[in-house]
Amino acid sequence: MTKEDILDRLAKQLSPKRLEHSRGVSHTAAELAARYGADVAKAELAGLLHDCARGMPNNLLLQAAAASGIVVNSVEQREPVLLHAPLGAVIAGRDYGVDDPEVLSAIRWHTTGGPVMALLDEIVFLADYIEPGRSFPGVDRLRELAAASLPEALLAAYDQTLRYLLSEGGLIHPATVEGRNALLVKIKKK
Amino acid sequence: MTKEDILDRLAKQLSPKRLEHSRGVSHTAAELAARYGADVAKAELAGLLHDCARGMPNNLLLQAAAASGIVVNSVEQREPVLLHAPLGAVIAGRDYGVDDPEVLSAIRWHTTGGPVMALLDEIVFLADYIEPGRSFPGVDRLRELAAASLPEALLAAYDQTLRYLLSEGGLIHPATVEGRNALLVKIKKK
Repeated sequence: MTKEDILDRLAKQLSPKRLEHSRGVSHTAAELAARYGADVAKAELAGLLHDCARGMPNNLLLQAAAASGIVVNSVEQREPVLLHAPLGAVIAGRDYGVDDPEVLSAIRWHTTGGPVMALLDEIVFLADYIEPGRSFPGVDRLRELAAASLPEALLAAYDQTLRYLLSEGGLIHPATVEGRNALLVKIKKK
Repeated sequence: MTKEDILDRLAKQLSPKRLEHSRGVSHTAAELAARYGADVAKAELAGLLHDCARGMPNNLLLQAAAASGIVVNSVEQREPVLLHAPLGAVIAGRDYGVDDPEVLSAIRWHTTGGPVMALLDEIVFLADYIEPGRSFPGVDRLRELAAASLPEALLAAYDQTLRYLLSEGGLIHPATVEGRNALLVKIKKK
């Protein structure tokens, strides 16, 4: 599919606001890829498609995950919105013709992060936090960190997610903790 | 063993400060047990012994865990001090003659918490936070919560542990997150 075909299809699945967010993530992911030596085209594509399943309601996410053989854990069972990431990878393959495993992996892990993150996974995960449309307290510091050090920016993103979940009384996905732990070990080894 | 025998043995394994802490946890656990309908004598014993392996250095903790068949995860490998809890249950059985599974379980889970906590487990876990010798910021609020609601106090204790690990850049044990998640689900069901 061409980028225009992808945008046309996405526009039918996502709200205008979320489509704009997806364009922002695509743009920021491409910038980060250029900065950190990843494939710019893959980053752009993964960023554009990362939320392709985000428009699905919870009951459909649960149904489609089960039908796709995605193992749903007890946190996802109660917070089905988290399934838009693994299901997004399935849909990007099925409906958007993506067969690049690096692009699919970046879509797969963009929400929770995880213990084994490829460079492209890290870039899309981070771009999702700092694309130009984001405006939460601390986003500017995160943008500065992203320009200076990918691992430090990723750690700050994980920490921010966890602090948010603590303040909201939200369930914590185990992959987020595993991802942060693995990153800490990586940073300390340097 | 009589309580005096236990104290004599503990005094050889722990610093005076940690022995005093253990007495404090024993006392507070007994109070919480009376408040929440658990067995007071078991709470007192588990509190007294909860840190019986806490005086061991990291290399011994790792060796003894391996020798005892304790499965060491990647967080414990890097933070062996966490092993004093599961190893403490082994040592309480072997060296202090404890064969009550409820007491051993409370020692086992007192540091990380976990997804399946019995009432006595919860009481010793919480007593470890709020015994009279503790003086961290927020401990008074935690003591008030403990007098009012066991689940709310446990949640605050989990949150405090996680906030501390975030502020320190410390690794997060998966059992702590599983324990907090399970507790949140339990609280929301009420």
